[in-house]
Amino acid sequence: MTIDRRAMLKAGAAGIAGAAAGPVLAADPTSKLRPAVEAGHAAAVERLRQWIALPSIAAENRGYPEGPDYMRRLALDAGFQSAEIVPSSGKPGVFATLDAGAKKTLGIYFMYDVKQYDPKEWSSPPLEGRIVDKPGLGKAMVGRGAVNQKGPETTFLAALHAFKAAGVKLPVNLVLVAEGEEEIASPNFHEIVQTPRVAAALRKSVGVIIPTGWQNPATGAVTLALGAKGAMEFELTVSGEKWGRGPKGDIHSSEKARVDSPPWRLVAALSTLVSPDGNTVMIDGIQDKVVPLTPRQRELIAMTARATDETSTKKQLGVTRWIDDMDWEASLVRLAQVPTVNIQGLVAGYTGPGGKTVLPGRATAKIEMRLVPDMTIEDTLAKLRAHLDKRGFADVEINVSGGYGPTQTDEKSALIRAELATCERLGVPATLAPRLAGSWPGVIFTGPPLGLPAGQFGFGHGSGAHAPDEYFLIESTNPKVMGMKDATMGFVDFLYQVAATA
Amino acid sequence: MTIDRRAMLKAGAAGIAGAAAGPVLAADPTSKLRPAVEAGHAAAVERLRQWIALPSIAAENRGYPEGPDYMRRLALDAGFQSAEIVPSSGKPGVFATLDAGAKKTLGIYFMYDVKQYDPKEWSSPPLEGRIVDKPGLGKAMVGRGAVNQKGPETTFLAALHAFKAAGVKLPVNLVLVAEGEEEIASPNFHEIVQTPRVAAALRKSVGVIIPTGWQNPATGAVTLALGAKGAMEFELTVSGEKWGRGPKGDIHSSEKARVDSPPWRLVAALSTLVSPDGNTVMIDGIQDKVVPLTPRQRELIAMTARATDETSTKKQLGVTRWIDDMDWEASLVRLAQVPTVNIQGLVAGYTGPGGKTVLPGRATAKIEMRLVPDMTIEDTLAKLRAHLDKRGFADVEINVSGGYGPTQTDEKSALIRAELATCERLGVPATLAPRLAGSWPGVIFTGPPLGLPAGQFGFGHGSGAHAPDEYFLIESTNPKVMGMKDATMGFVDFLYQVAATA
Repeated sequence: MTIDRRAMLKAGAAGIAGAAAGPVLAADPTSKLRPAVEAGHAAAVERLRQWIALPSIAAENRGYPEGPDYMRRLALDAGFQSAEIVPSSGKPGVFATLDAGAKKTLGIYFMYDVKQYDPKEWSSPPLEGRIVDKPGLGKAMVGRGAVNQKGPETTFLAALHAFKAAGVKLPVNLVLVAEGEEEIASPNFHEIVQTPRVAAALRKSVGVIIPTGWQNPATGAVTLALGAKGAMEFELTVSGEKWGRGPKGDIHSSEKARVDSPPWRLVAALSTLVSPDGNTVMIDGIQDKVVPLTPRQRELIAMTARATDETSTKKQLGVTRWIDDMDWEASLVRLAQVPTVNIQGLVAGYTGPGGKTVLPGRATAKIEMRLVPDMTIEDTLAKLRAHLDKRGFADVEINVSGGYGPTQTDEKSALIRAELATCERLGVPATLAPRLAGSWPGVIFTGPPLGLPAGQFGFGHGSGAHAPDEYFLIESTNPKVMGMKDATMGFVDFLYQVAATA
Repeated sequence: MTIDRRAMLKAGAAGIAGAAAGPVLAADPTSKLRPAVEAGHAAAVERLRQWIALPSIAAENRGYPEGPDYMRRLALDAGFQSAEIVPSSGKPGVFATLDAGAKKTLGIYFMYDVKQYDPKEWSSPPLEGRIVDKPGLGKAMVGRGAVNQKGPETTFLAALHAFKAAGVKLPVNLVLVAEGEEEIASPNFHEIVQTPRVAAALRKSVGVIIPTGWQNPATGAVTLALGAKGAMEFELTVSGEKWGRGPKGDIHSSEKARVDSPPWRLVAALSTLVSPDGNTVMIDGIQDKVVPLTPRQRELIAMTARATDETSTKKQLGVTRWIDDMDWEASLVRLAQVPTVNIQGLVAGYTGPGGKTVLPGRATAKIEMRLVPDMTIEDTLAKLRAHLDKRGFADVEINVSGGYGPTQTDEKSALIRAELATCERLGVPATLAPRLAGSWPGVIFTGPPLGLPAGQFGFGHGSGAHAPDEYFLIESTNPKVMGMKDATMGFVDFLYQVAATA
């Protein structure tokens, strides 16, 4: 499962907030924190390097229980007073609290797992954490998990180490909840979050952030997402075995004259799911749950359309036309507004070079649906099943591998206002995205039973999530983006803003 | 391309002719041939072993010009007075003649190429030609090309060596035409056959056979095919590049909301080609060329239905029901009667385990159509193109990799009568198949401009064409099937029957 967050920045529509570009140092009301961040920098970099050396990969069942144990240790070292392993039906989570005696509490979401990798594709070993020169950026650490998500998370922890080293009380209490299955679409994270003592602690918070480091290197801007589409990933499979027609395995293709074909049945079933152009979901009743964008959401998208560049986006995507030749703003509206059924892959029969005279015994489409409010995984799955059954495709298997519903957070929530205030104070341009087209498990916080604001937040820069040579910027030579020390001070500032925001 | 002939025996419907089972020695009007076959047996086996050691594989561009050179040498050694390499746009053919001063001439079709193989899958090296014990059969030679087609071809050549060694004149003249691209669907064989001096020589023949060794080990029966469906193999591809819509390469799947999808377009295009159940070809005008089966063809199929076993066929195929739950005879009729569009494979986007959040830039269906008289490759391709264009799919690419039209030979032709007479004399049960569902390039002889009878003929047994451990029976311990010596005498007998058939 790879519903990654890489696509968020480019995928999301965004309104513009914040002041002129150029990072500035964050505030330090105690005048002790900045020196502590400076003094702790080498240790923070070393902490990131060591964490990268210890990958946890759920898809490969690798790095457990070392991953959660290490995560717990990281939390305790950073000043959390308690940290415990929380079991789930899958990999365990970590739950930690830091009671600063403050009035407000902030929730922090970490993932301690990373995406799979192939060392052959990397220019330096993916677990080494080598420091390399990135022209136009500065010195960056290369390693799996560098930006997704250990770099930004280590940056956040560095802020806590600075408070601890400086002997300064945090302005907010913290509740940390970490999972080790984010890269397989968080199938059990709800169990961890809804563990009564975890949920009770989170309920006291003003909202939850996951630390990020996605400043745009050209503008320094960050995107503040107010929501994201949900995603449901599944395979649709037709097999002779299940169908009771067609062959059990591949047979000679001349038999097609008298034997039914699983691939043709898959084509027939697929063609009922969308309009002939593939662009409108036709699953019975699926549109009933779709809530139209609000005027404010449309306004934010219109602002984004004016402030962003269609040509470079098309070029980057290798796309010359949007659906129906729509314009830039309409494409951004659609990105936020419509649910989709996407074919990620088709696999049936012979897939090598040339041909092979077989009538295949099974055929599979790898599909992912993107969901918008108020769609849910459960309702969508039930409607898909009913849609297929009604058309005589009861044998067509739906094997869901992961997913979560859409998430939405109020622009007026204290969390988002604190984010905006931090950006404004630091002079970092911030764009408000009403809904990212990419997906993340925010709904586990924003949906029932918690109903908390939740989003991504942080400064600094990295790239290459899920790709080779993933990196996170340590020392910036680019005036638009922060290095790790400044990004650490950005979190310091944010904690004070959260404390100050009514 | 692998429109193989393996499927023919099980795929074809057949009428029953011939007498009781059990091979008997072929006639030897000179009483010198049988001893010569016996004396030459060891040399014939060695000839097969050496030929297997020299594979020609067009798909891998391997074994040329060694293959055609060796083929030419084999012909000259067997008594052909002239043998020459005939160039084509692809691999060269071999054309050889043996003038016995006889009244009649028989055409012989050889393929000197073999199918690809993976040595890892074999229990003895595929080029070694090792002799192994096959329980219930006898001693067999294992090697690539053993049954498809070097074993039967070497058996035929052994008959000619016997005539030569015995100093006996052949009862018929021979015209041999060999190709080296059968396994890639004979894309250039028509050029070789239509080379004026080759066509002129063939025109004098009563018809053309390719030597086979497909006696059923349970019954000893052979199938005499009166025709075979044609086949056209191609890929249908939708790409963002060609379409001008969708992405050029794979992009993040969240973009589906605003970017067109090549896989969905492929699904839409495919769904127009067949009825919703996948069983009737719906390409505009394609049914116009389909000639209904004659009463005699239906009669032969009915005879086959009565004489053959539905249950074991279904079990062998792993199929529990025919299309529309039709009965055995109806399934045999459909096998002979209807053109088909079969999906051999589907390939798009991510095809590995689990999912991957991509919107693919291209999608391909590997298709093969089976053609019946009077369909042709050219007409079928033109109709497919027009069908897609009319529905707005002009960008959908059709990449034909090979194929040939259907072939049909008159049951009353001298060639078929000589085959039947040989079977009857030798007590080998023969079933007449009006049309095989599998395909072979017989149309190059039976179609314009030659219009000759053509078919497969021979005795003996082998199996595993295109598969690992392909073998050909050398010494039979099974009273139902002939070993190589008896099969050689079968060809001797056949040559006399051809000479004797008016």
